[in-house]
Amino acid sequence: MKRRQFLKNAGAFAAGGAAASSLAAPAIAKNKIEWKMVMPWPKGAPGVGVNAQRIADMITSASDGRLTVTLYGGGELVPPFECFDAVQNGSADIAHGTPYYWSGKNSAFHYFTTLPFGMTATEMASWIRFGDGQALWDETYGSFGLKGFYAGSSGVQTAGWFNREIGSLNDLKGLKMRIAGLGGEAMRRLGVSVVMMPPGEIYGAMQSGAVDAAEWVGPWNDLAFGLYKTAKYYYMPAFHEPGPALEVFLKQETYEALPQDLQAIVKMAVTAGAMDTLSDFTYHNITSLKPLVEGKGVAVRSFPDEVVSALGEKSMEIIAETAGKDDLSKRIDASVRDFVGQAVDYADLIERPMLRQRSMVWKQG
Amino acid sequence: MKRRQFLKNAGAFAAGGAAASSLAAPAIAKNKIEWKMVMPWPKGAPGVGVNAQRIADMITSASDGRLTVTLYGGGELVPPFECFDAVQNGSADIAHGTPYYWSGKNSAFHYFTTLPFGMTATEMASWIRFGDGQALWDETYGSFGLKGFYAGSSGVQTAGWFNREIGSLNDLKGLKMRIAGLGGEAMRRLGVSVVMMPPGEIYGAMQSGAVDAAEWVGPWNDLAFGLYKTAKYYYMPAFHEPGPALEVFLKQETYEALPQDLQAIVKMAVTAGAMDTLSDFTYHNITSLKPLVEGKGVAVRSFPDEVVSALGEKSMEIIAETAGKDDLSKRIDASVRDFVGQAVDYADLIERPMLRQRSMVWKQG
Repeated sequence: MKRRQFLKNAGAFAAGGAAASSLAAPAIAKNKIEWKMVMPWPKGAPGVGVNAQRIADMITSASDGRLTVTLYGGGELVPPFECFDAVQNGSADIAHGTPYYWSGKNSAFHYFTTLPFGMTATEMASWIRFGDGQALWDETYGSFGLKGFYAGSSGVQTAGWFNREIGSLNDLKGLKMRIAGLGGEAMRRLGVSVVMMPPGEIYGAMQSGAVDAAEWVGPWNDLAFGLYKTAKYYYMPAFHEPGPALEVFLKQETYEALPQDLQAIVKMAVTAGAMDTLSDFTYHNITSLKPLVEGKGVAVRSFPDEVVSALGEKSMEIIAETAGKDDLSKRIDASVRDFVGQAVDYADLIERPMLRQRSMVWKQG
Repeated sequence: MKRRQFLKNAGAFAAGGAAASSLAAPAIAKNKIEWKMVMPWPKGAPGVGVNAQRIADMITSASDGRLTVTLYGGGELVPPFECFDAVQNGSADIAHGTPYYWSGKNSAFHYFTTLPFGMTATEMASWIRFGDGQALWDETYGSFGLKGFYAGSSGVQTAGWFNREIGSLNDLKGLKMRIAGLGGEAMRRLGVSVVMMPPGEIYGAMQSGAVDAAEWVGPWNDLAFGLYKTAKYYYMPAFHEPGPALEVFLKQETYEALPQDLQAIVKMAVTAGAMDTLSDFTYHNITSLKPLVEGKGVAVRSFPDEVVSALGEKSMEIIAETAGKDDLSKRIDASVRDFVGQAVDYADLIERPMLRQRSMVWKQG
């Protein structure tokens, strides 16, 4: 199986045209592999599309073209939400995405993107790399013949754009909202009429009044999407996506068939891409806040504690149901809960006081 | 110059023994480069030494041994605090460290490690990668013929171990403390007698009473060092190191002389190493807190606001002095201040409320 896959990939050389001629080593240059990479986002989409391209390019340049990765935007090669199937059935070799987009396959995928009130971006990266995360993910994706790698995060997202204020639980009842993931289900249980639609349709749905509220990513992407034109109130932070993970995945056999140095390059490129992605979102979210809030006259709001507390209760209920589905989900859930519990204590003692003290000092002087 | 450097490095092949014989491409295999990497930390030191090794190994494996990096612990090849000189004078090819260790060369180096009440780890990574950081760092290190890359962070550090409580500014007067960087100078201006010593001497100095207080890193490293045995009170968080940066640096000409694919591999390996390092510290700090606090019966404390506010005032004074030294320092300072100001607003609206809401929900359930 492994050898066959390798030969199939290596065979793609024939379609690759002439190799770079600067090195006089034809025997090696001929072992050229070409990969098609797909993703659910448009090509060049800030944060997601751009960093998928960076990862593809890093693999190509670090391998000196021996492994060349060509990236296709959502819909170019396969429909946005069919990347998982495409890699499984071989119409693409590798994909950039986020696990919960394929949670129809297995609801445990949610754990590898985000949970409401769950891990921050760096906590998630750390649980995957040094905790139980990667092994549990390998087990989960492994049953589909796939292998996933952590590819960064948007950082804390925002709760969304609302055409009216949410002053109490009562204001959620009957609200029509576009919201993704398990957080959407928590909203539904509090009386919200939850709608899911692809990113490209959010603006129009808000503009036409088809929905009253919609969440997308954070200040950077929301500013680029022009969402401030569609609603007055911008709620922060996102209870449902405190550090959602991006991924790169491919067939286990495709990965294992690579020579050791190309395996190292693929893994390294995705990990470097994770750092780039987190940095890209962090920098641009921070520098987009003032242009958005002051520049566009947006009214920033935060859910009242009554609402947060109810969302917390419903979220925990939904997580417990997800955990109850099978033995693997139960084991993932136990590991996540144990780690988040410790992370909350750590943040309470170290990160929250640091951010509070820093703010105090910057605002005093 | 560039060609000469390349030939010098390539010449190291002669000492490198037989190349791996699995590839039938002797002409390429002979272009083998060997690098000596130095660092100020002991080999295998948690967080720092281990991740320097990971970076060295990633370069070696991704290049299939064409660029082989051998790591030397502090003192093995050159004394710990002479890594900067060693790379400059060619006795080492590349180093892992942190810029402020060499701030005797130029006080502007502090900006590329950390400032008191400055950037968090992800903010620093983002300012270097997507803000002005890398260009300003290139200008700063460039005048020494060197090029630096961001290599991750410990995350927020802790304020240190104290043999008595700090209830007011008065309690700082006459205190003898081991504390690094600009934060040490802020402490000195509040009456603390500041002592600097290598990490290996901290435990003994606390044990003997030569110092009353000492800061090192955070729960993970402090637990490993056994510092809980030397003092009762553990102060959190570190006002002086909210996200200190690690680095990898080498001569500009060494880097530029590499073929494009090896340049890509070196850059990628350090960036992947940055993600690994941040994840390693995050995971192990979080999971070391309970064993340290509950397991060892440590009393956790936080400086009162009176002390934080005074440390803030002195820190801003010191940063202004550092900025005033020359035109480059002034430009770095302006960029850092502009970004931290925006980051504080962002954290106040998004990150702090998220951590507060998450804690509320986890503690209610």
